[in-house]
Amino acid sequence: MKATVHVTLKNGVLDPQGKAVEHALGTLGFNGIEGARIGKYIELDLAETNADKAETQVTEMCEKLLANTVIENFRVEVDG
Amino acid sequence: MKATVHVTLKNGVLDPQGKAVEHALGTLGFNGIEGARIGKYIELDLAETNADKAETQVTEMCEKLLANTVIENFRVEVDG
Repeated sequence: MKATVHVTLKNGVLDPQGKAVEHALGTLGFNGIEGARIGKYIELDLAETNADKAETQVTEMCEKLLANTVIENFRVEVDG
Repeated sequence: MKATVHVTLKNGVLDPQGKAVEHALGTLGFNGIEGARIGKYIELDLAETNADKAETQVTEMCEKLLANTVIENFRVEVDG
């Protein structure tokens, strides 16, 4: 079973990597960039075949390792 | 207009960060992880209001800056 996780910085948390990308795009001649935020995208292959159990397991992984819940939000999607 | 970009390593390209996460999850007691791949997730705020133009613009940004197309794939989504 495959699961995907999006980890994004919470609103209000400074994102220097996003600022750097925004600036770099500007210097490359792309105008009209009003903001850029960079997050992580994680694809997991799980042996678990039950979607609910897989989602619970991946949520626990996010809380323990994949996301820093003080400054980051995460979103888990499981697809059969 | 908001656009999101997923940048992922192509199949066959070694992903040391993914391997590290896979191993770390194992040591934390999560069994049944058969694979982990880490990519980037980019959220852009654009001044452009035409969805087609925005998609073309963001695709060009990916080719020029956001993705290394030798080893990475990217996927652009634009939502009004």
